[in-house]
Amino acid sequence: MKTIYLDHVATNPLNPEVLEAMLPYFRERYGNPLSLYEPGMKAREAIENARESTASLINAKSKEIIFTASGAEANNFALKGIAYANQNKGKHLIISRIEHHSILNTARFLEKSGFAVTYLPVDKYGTVNPEDVEKAITKETILISIIHASPEIGTIEPIAEISKIAKQKGVVLHTDAVASVGNIPVDVQSLGIDLLSFAAHQFYGPKGAAAIYVKEGMRIVPLIYGGIQEGGRRAGTENVPAIVGMGKAAELARINIQKRIDHIMPLRDQLISNALKIDKIILTGHPEQRLPGHASFVVEYIEGEAMLLLLAAKGIYCASGSACSSKALKASPVLISIGIPAHLAQGSVVFTLGEDTTEDNINYFNETFPQIISRLREISPYAKGWEGMEGSSCTVKK
Amino acid sequence: MKTIYLDHVATNPLNPEVLEAMLPYFRERYGNPLSLYEPGMKAREAIENARESTASLINAKSKEIIFTASGAEANNFALKGIAYANQNKGKHLIISRIEHHSILNTARFLEKSGFAVTYLPVDKYGTVNPEDVEKAITKETILISIIHASPEIGTIEPIAEISKIAKQKGVVLHTDAVASVGNIPVDVQSLGIDLLSFAAHQFYGPKGAAAIYVKEGMRIVPLIYGGIQEGGRRAGTENVPAIVGMGKAAELARINIQKRIDHIMPLRDQLISNALKIDKIILTGHPEQRLPGHASFVVEYIEGEAMLLLLAAKGIYCASGSACSSKALKASPVLISIGIPAHLAQGSVVFTLGEDTTEDNINYFNETFPQIISRLREISPYAKGWEGMEGSSCTVKK
Repeated sequence: MKTIYLDHVATNPLNPEVLEAMLPYFRERYGNPLSLYEPGMKAREAIENARESTASLINAKSKEIIFTASGAEANNFALKGIAYANQNKGKHLIISRIEHHSILNTARFLEKSGFAVTYLPVDKYGTVNPEDVEKAITKETILISIIHASPEIGTIEPIAEISKIAKQKGVVLHTDAVASVGNIPVDVQSLGIDLLSFAAHQFYGPKGAAAIYVKEGMRIVPLIYGGIQEGGRRAGTENVPAIVGMGKAAELARINIQKRIDHIMPLRDQLISNALKIDKIILTGHPEQRLPGHASFVVEYIEGEAMLLLLAAKGIYCASGSACSSKALKASPVLISIGIPAHLAQGSVVFTLGEDTTEDNINYFNETFPQIISRLREISPYAKGWEGMEGSSCTVKK
Repeated sequence: MKTIYLDHVATNPLNPEVLEAMLPYFRERYGNPLSLYEPGMKAREAIENARESTASLINAKSKEIIFTASGAEANNFALKGIAYANQNKGKHLIISRIEHHSILNTARFLEKSGFAVTYLPVDKYGTVNPEDVEKAITKETILISIIHASPEIGTIEPIAEISKIAKQKGVVLHTDAVASVGNIPVDVQSLGIDLLSFAAHQFYGPKGAAAIYVKEGMRIVPLIYGGIQEGGRRAGTENVPAIVGMGKAAELARINIQKRIDHIMPLRDQLISNALKIDKIILTGHPEQRLPGHASFVVEYIEGEAMLLLLAAKGIYCASGSACSSKALKASPVLISIGIPAHLAQGSVVFTLGEDTTEDNINYFNETFPQIISRLREISPYAKGWEGMEGSSCTVKK
């Protein structure tokens, strides 16, 4: 069976050149990078080269890059690290309602530890209003953290505008750029941000390698204490092959980013315009200010999980922002935040394209997707007279 | 030049079978393990198999294993996670003075956050006295964390005895077993502990894969918040290849552990008895209760870094517990704790054998090491009339 991978926002296969670059560091240049002998020094050198290449991708300096093991770790580090470093100045944080769980749940942990958090609303496209950020800032505010691009609805936030406000008010600004770095050009200088999280597997690098940009001179309390790795700011024996892989993937992303965008954006646009011909389907997220490979919908009368399973049966691999598929049995907070009612949020589906996506793939998809919707609606009890069934949700059905 | 790797406690080359097991998860079974389609489900299945094998190595249940990215992360998670989960019961922790930096520095962070920490002394062999543990426990004590085996001096601590006391008093017990798991049999049931940290690269598994054993029913606050990975206790897209590698390495360690010990222990004993023929050299750590591949010394009149460099020039790769080599410019707290004066602690050197170490290697070492000591003593200003030079240290010299 033909298989079409349309879940690039979840993760990606490793680029073969990246794997090639990593291989010598498993068994040959295996030494501990802190050691004084050759296999260790080669490893240390490789880490510093990777740091330079990783920094280049976002126009940062090498010393502003701290490697972590995941975007989630980088996000936890940013929030807790800045909160603890600045708690004497104030104990107020501002985030948006559409942050990733690694930001949302860390914010909730900090609330339990005596910090106050403002959760900013978004408009129907999922965009944060910079004026709302400004209004939310108090004398106690020590950190603003706004996602750069939503993996669930694709919307790109006006970070540069928000950063002007943050600078004016002297508040530190972090952005979770896991879904954006490597997929669109990201420049920490022109964005004007202080901290930024990103992950290698989002741009064909390895899982287990991610990084946080911390602007020179910014104080941050470690999340992981221990040895002197990463300048004493993130302990643990370095995952050398993964870091090397991140460096290589960053280099390739920097070179190829425009080519990748030019390839996937027209295909994505085809997919969207075809999908929107289906009856009672809504594009979620911003129609223009969105990730180039990102298409997300809510399909009325249908459950996300059923869609995913039937699509998978046809060889199409994608994701649902619906809570049922993530086993949490709660409607997605992102979809609720953009005004999608809970019962409709169950019909969420997200297609994300990658550099391997072909026109053939999209043609096949365009043919298959409407057929699956029709089939599901035929067998769905909801499709007949759904309207007015507020409060229905997948938890009720289970 | 012949090279002899005697720094197995720092890290290890990946076992070729382990690499083989990992390879399909980079580009073929690359899917996100939370997804509902085949490449993701294969990845999830592989993680659960790895969890079972990893659990088996320490006689735990699969659901008692939480994967992390490093031993340092596991140690930070244990201390902060148990402290935050139990702070309503009390705010007192007990650790030893010879803990790894990832425990020591996390304890210091917790002290700043309102917890009290008792740092237990050790005897001249680096052994914690279980009676000292008992005496240190108060009504406020919520956690005891004692290292299982010291990577610096090799001493194995009496964890089973300490666990009896902890159980009697109803205090949670964690052990940092990074240096021991995979090198000696470790059984969480017979040790009677509640939490245990270990890392794959210590037993020929990959860097970037480690785990914490958390006894069934034990509440722990996450260190990394986010998605529902690892039962909601450790977020972040799983590093599937590394986890698969840890599972394979655990399987091999479980099968081969006695064979590995039988191979390296006689070689290590040869190394020690030969080295002890050198004038003014001290074996650090316990003479019997020590890791089977571990030999550590303090060589009077000599600086560790100089030893490492000359040994490396002869193809012998090893480590120094001395602070100069780790760039921290402080004498090792472990050596100070066992009563080695600061100026002697600079002459620390650690040799750790592995399954690849041969009798030829040790013969070459036994020949080379005394020559290097002689040469260094010839050129050392300290070697002539060192006695009485208390207070001299590498910080003074720099």
